[in-house]
Amino acid sequence: LGVFDSGLGGLTVVRALLDQCPGESIVYLGDTARVPYGTRSAETVIRYARRCAAQLMLSNIKALVVACNTASAVAVDMLRVEFDLPVVGVIEPGARAALRVLQARPELQNAPVGVLGTQGTVRSGAYPRAMAQLSTRYEVYGQAAPLLVPLVEEGWLDGDVPRLAIRRYLEPLIAARVRVIVLGCTHYPLLKPLIQNVAEELASEPVVIVDSARATAEAVDALLSEGKIPRSRSGSVTERLSLMVTDLPESFQASAARFLGRGAPKALQVDLSADA
Amino acid sequence: LGVFDSGLGGLTVVRALLDQCPGESIVYLGDTARVPYGTRSAETVIRYARRCAAQLMLSNIKALVVACNTASAVAVDMLRVEFDLPVVGVIEPGARAALRVLQARPELQNAPVGVLGTQGTVRSGAYPRAMAQLSTRYEVYGQAAPLLVPLVEEGWLDGDVPRLAIRRYLEPLIAARVRVIVLGCTHYPLLKPLIQNVAEELASEPVVIVDSARATAEAVDALLSEGKIPRSRSGSVTERLSLMVTDLPESFQASAARFLGRGAPKALQVDLSADA
Repeated sequence: LGVFDSGLGGLTVVRALLDQCPGESIVYLGDTARVPYGTRSAETVIRYARRCAAQLMLSNIKALVVACNTASAVAVDMLRVEFDLPVVGVIEPGARAALRVLQARPELQNAPVGVLGTQGTVRSGAYPRAMAQLSTRYEVYGQAAPLLVPLVEEGWLDGDVPRLAIRRYLEPLIAARVRVIVLGCTHYPLLKPLIQNVAEELASEPVVIVDSARATAEAVDALLSEGKIPRSRSGSVTERLSLMVTDLPESFQASAARFLGRGAPKALQVDLSADA
Repeated sequence: LGVFDSGLGGLTVVRALLDQCPGESIVYLGDTARVPYGTRSAETVIRYARRCAAQLMLSNIKALVVACNTASAVAVDMLRVEFDLPVVGVIEPGARAALRVLQARPELQNAPVGVLGTQGTVRSGAYPRAMAQLSTRYEVYGQAAPLLVPLVEEGWLDGDVPRLAIRRYLEPLIAARVRVIVLGCTHYPLLKPLIQNVAEELASEPVVIVDSARATAEAVDALLSEGKIPRSRSGSVTERLSLMVTDLPESFQASAARFLGRGAPKALQVDLSADA
């Protein structure tokens, strides 16, 4: 399986894939020379995504996971056309998971759904579109939360600064009666406990946080079970994962274990600048 | 005058140049397709800086201002070798301005100097080097403050979140008896009042904040006065400034006035991706 993201965040998807799909090997590419994608135009993100996919194809992958919400929002359709293999983004699985929660909870039948994401993801309107394709019953409120990625990368996962920033982003959602919130950025699962805590404090009732990284791994597992991606039988976790980045492999290395929840193999540097 | 930065921040230098050097026209290039530079490796920043400089040369500039601390830290020497015109970075002027403050205040003769900057700028050690070339008397403490750029870009210039983040970054500096702090990133001047306020609250005495954007404009003005850059006589401010970006001209436009302290002309998009 080939997985790419703009940087570190996609490793939360890798973590879920390693847990959910035993036996599958993963080649991960973090485009750290051009992170973040979330503040860039659709054209630029499409160009970067095409280069990442082409690089992963060199590793003979059997399916491509776009572990970046911004790239999933704008580039999945292009990648499906240009590359001849199954392509899984993070947005449709996230939308499906949110819908399952809503349908299982009768008291939420008329509640809107909230999406926290980068500016690029929210501006793209990809979550509202994905939800509308599944059901026209639910309104979707997107909230751009550009400070959360730098907070996660700085390692400030608890304390006053992330708590107050999250509060500021959640207030309009909770005020709009949102009780199901999709984490529309692969960095955010590291802040999930704090986001849930602040949301429930604001709402004074339970709030469900949907982790799209986990939902994506479940979608890949479903494709494996249906035979749409052939299954593999690889060895131990260390043998199953290899990492590539486009800049600063040492910094990536230093943070990777935090996102993976386990030790990380050495990251190799690759150069995508030729036609970046 | 050609000025470049990774994104918006360098506009604080442009603002100072417009004020300080009347009659001079400015072509500004913000490399918004690859912002931020602060978290990238030296090799990557050098490659990006070379492309920005080459693009500005097309506008027939007579001097090049590197309005980005990260690029100044690692690429000014390369640019001086490869391009045949005066090149001014932001670091040496900032270090000189800090030294002037220290020399004017006898009570600070043995105090260390603090530098707030991006990870790239602090890791490069460029401010300690620049200070050491001017005087070996002062110790320099660098403090990476990666959340401040996203806070400025989000427009959160006051309130609890920026105040607490700044407090966390300043505490070690103030504890080390720092009373002169250089703003080693061109975004930070927008947070200057808050940084000064928090620093003085922590120190319980006056703290001097050195704005390297202003110091850089003074250095350019000095080169004009010495005849090392020929003077020009352009018209009004709107005629004197043109803006180029590598991505999202509309978003850039929307924020530019905040950094410039005046209305901004329309930004043109240029493509540097060919050999990025």
